[in-house]
Amino acid sequence: MTDLTQMGQRAVAAKYELQRLTPREKNGVLARAAKLLTDRTEEILAENARDMRNGEENGMHPGMLDRLRLTGQRMEAMAQGLLQIAELPDCVGEVLERTVRPNGMEIEKVRVPMGVIGIIYESRPNVTADAFGLCFKTGNAVILKGGSDAIYSNLAIVRVLQDALEECGVCRDAVSLIEDTDRKVTAEFMRLNQYVDVLIPRGGAGLIRSVVENSTIPVIETGTGNCHVYVDRDADLEMAADIIFNAKTQRIGVCNACESLVVHSSVREFFLPKLAGRLREKQVELRGDERVREILGEECVPACEEDYGREYLDYILSIKTVDSLEEAIDHINRYSTKHSECIVTKNPEASEKFLREVDAACVYANVSTRFTDGFEFGFGAEIGISTQKLHARGPMGLRELTSYKYIIRGNGQIRP
Amino acid sequence: MTDLTQMGQRAVAAKYELQRLTPREKNGVLARAAKLLTDRTEEILAENARDMRNGEENGMHPGMLDRLRLTGQRMEAMAQGLLQIAELPDCVGEVLERTVRPNGMEIEKVRVPMGVIGIIYESRPNVTADAFGLCFKTGNAVILKGGSDAIYSNLAIVRVLQDALEECGVCRDAVSLIEDTDRKVTAEFMRLNQYVDVLIPRGGAGLIRSVVENSTIPVIETGTGNCHVYVDRDADLEMAADIIFNAKTQRIGVCNACESLVVHSSVREFFLPKLAGRLREKQVELRGDERVREILGEECVPACEEDYGREYLDYILSIKTVDSLEEAIDHINRYSTKHSECIVTKNPEASEKFLREVDAACVYANVSTRFTDGFEFGFGAEIGISTQKLHARGPMGLRELTSYKYIIRGNGQIRP
Repeated sequence: MTDLTQMGQRAVAAKYELQRLTPREKNGVLARAAKLLTDRTEEILAENARDMRNGEENGMHPGMLDRLRLTGQRMEAMAQGLLQIAELPDCVGEVLERTVRPNGMEIEKVRVPMGVIGIIYESRPNVTADAFGLCFKTGNAVILKGGSDAIYSNLAIVRVLQDALEECGVCRDAVSLIEDTDRKVTAEFMRLNQYVDVLIPRGGAGLIRSVVENSTIPVIETGTGNCHVYVDRDADLEMAADIIFNAKTQRIGVCNACESLVVHSSVREFFLPKLAGRLREKQVELRGDERVREILGEECVPACEEDYGREYLDYILSIKTVDSLEEAIDHINRYSTKHSECIVTKNPEASEKFLREVDAACVYANVSTRFTDGFEFGFGAEIGISTQKLHARGPMGLRELTSYKYIIRGNGQIRP
Repeated sequence: MTDLTQMGQRAVAAKYELQRLTPREKNGVLARAAKLLTDRTEEILAENARDMRNGEENGMHPGMLDRLRLTGQRMEAMAQGLLQIAELPDCVGEVLERTVRPNGMEIEKVRVPMGVIGIIYESRPNVTADAFGLCFKTGNAVILKGGSDAIYSNLAIVRVLQDALEECGVCRDAVSLIEDTDRKVTAEFMRLNQYVDVLIPRGGAGLIRSVVENSTIPVIETGTGNCHVYVDRDADLEMAADIIFNAKTQRIGVCNACESLVVHSSVREFFLPKLAGRLREKQVELRGDERVREILGEECVPACEEDYGREYLDYILSIKTVDSLEEAIDHINRYSTKHSECIVTKNPEASEKFLREVDAACVYANVSTRFTDGFEFGFGAEIGISTQKLHARGPMGLRELTSYKYIIRGNGQIRP
């Protein structure tokens, strides 16, 4: 069994080394890693083929197999991702605030790396390189625990990353992968708070719930998005249909897709048939309450209570009728996973009330929820979307992988 | 048994009400609460007397009894504390960042309340009013779980706070107290992540460890401080003795007191006898390694390995000799609880290296560690000192009790 204590201690030793690297040195490692990923594509693809064979033999779902598969093109994208991270500004060391106290001591609040970051993720092997790139750029050591389905791919990628570190004179422990796929090891990893400063789970709702319930390491909860679009009585209905069509169908398996429509009763008669027409193109199943079915008839199946709490990640949309903005806000605050919520309205009072009172990481007025994404927000890259309120909320870029410390300089101040 | 689910739901309902209050309305409640605490001092003191009697009957330690005791003066200080919080600037709603993306959508990052804050604390009843004041000022509902020793005092104080809320037309559920002192209820409270956004334990190391290990709510770990002062070869030794005397003896039971001295071997011969002389005034017990005992002889008992990891909270100081700055940094990073660490030196290269490489919330050059405190940092008030890296680090004032959300305004942007 993997000796996690030893792995933790080595990562801690690495974190002190990483915080001494200059931005240029860090970017040099990222460039070297990108080069090696390209040069050694064949080696990685061969290991990926082993994972693919195992997946096929185990009857893995075709969608999952596709997420697992690496190709020359995907390897190239992985390498490019590291180069893009290298080009982003280095935020470590940034002075966030500075004050001089009446007794003359100077207090600086300075951005520092977290230290050691743990990441638990599911199948996609490209996360391995991405997560390393983001953590390394911010001066953090990272311990990865990938899905057992991708173990050979992940091992090969980490070996290449470690070789790049070593070639640049940086210790290999800046990134490590837990090879053991036993669940007990994962459980032990979640309790490694002596060495790991923060744990970020990336994956489905089950994985995230398990981490939140069992981890003693501070967790940043990412992920599940039961995102609503509310069509107000004063909505531009063309715009509303465009936004819902986009947020529901542009990509269905993502956390910022729209899962539920909340519609004001005064527009439902005109709006719902129009929307249903649009969604028919993509064969979206509609599940609505009684007042929706009065309008759409057989085209809409009855929604049960449970539907309003579901993240379908599929061509399904639940629909709820409300009689007021307040009722819409209450409904959304009740069922929301606090990810991304949208109002469509031409009435600025209504939109400002919605933006203020809906409790979610990202609240939109007249914009598709699909924009909740680090690249779309201009962060350049992201490690995930946080749905909790501690530390970071919404898309998490480089800054969200840092902490701060207070540095106090003086000349002998003592407390009276 | 207390119905925690119901209490959680009521706190969630309250949080939506609180986020609609204006700064003036919130300050009005704080002023009213201060007034009522003063007016109803007799009522609270009578309940406190019940706790004191129980404490005496149960053989409570005199130091603990003193912490539990309320007096007219302490009640006045409690009321003044709320008035001081009312006078601090309101940070909720502050726009932290604003960007306009190429597609025209405008993104604002806005400071918002956390929502519902849970606080678990030990005996001192003044925490009840303080915690309410800080949470309420930042628009948060708060659920309190105080020590069973102070239950009658806490109930009386919360009743007064709730009456103040009601008189100002705000729902009483903005503050609630878990009356049940059963440990099972505390365990259940720690798993109330469906309703509580963040949990802050305040108390001894045992309480904090228990919360970190058992909570499914995101925790801000506060507290334990095994704080070091390192006396460099280039230290001003007068200053070093003043700082250590202050950090060790000015108040011994606090988390920012100095617990361990790290001394460069080249100054120990001259410095240690000098320091021992100063500390003799306060009868501080010294526990040192062999090289310290060579100098101090019988005045210093041998330190065992365990001593270097202890937060004594007493008139005891451990002493470790090192031969270099690097060794000092390694020793401190090994035993530190990441609270407050100090170097005394006239050499700016040494101090900058120490400030950069020591991993702690607050790192000091030539300043007593006793300044790690919200008031001393100019925050005006604090809820505790965070020793973790997530969200908030070091003294936590009002801003640290808030989160943020992204507000995106547009005119129909959809994702291509």
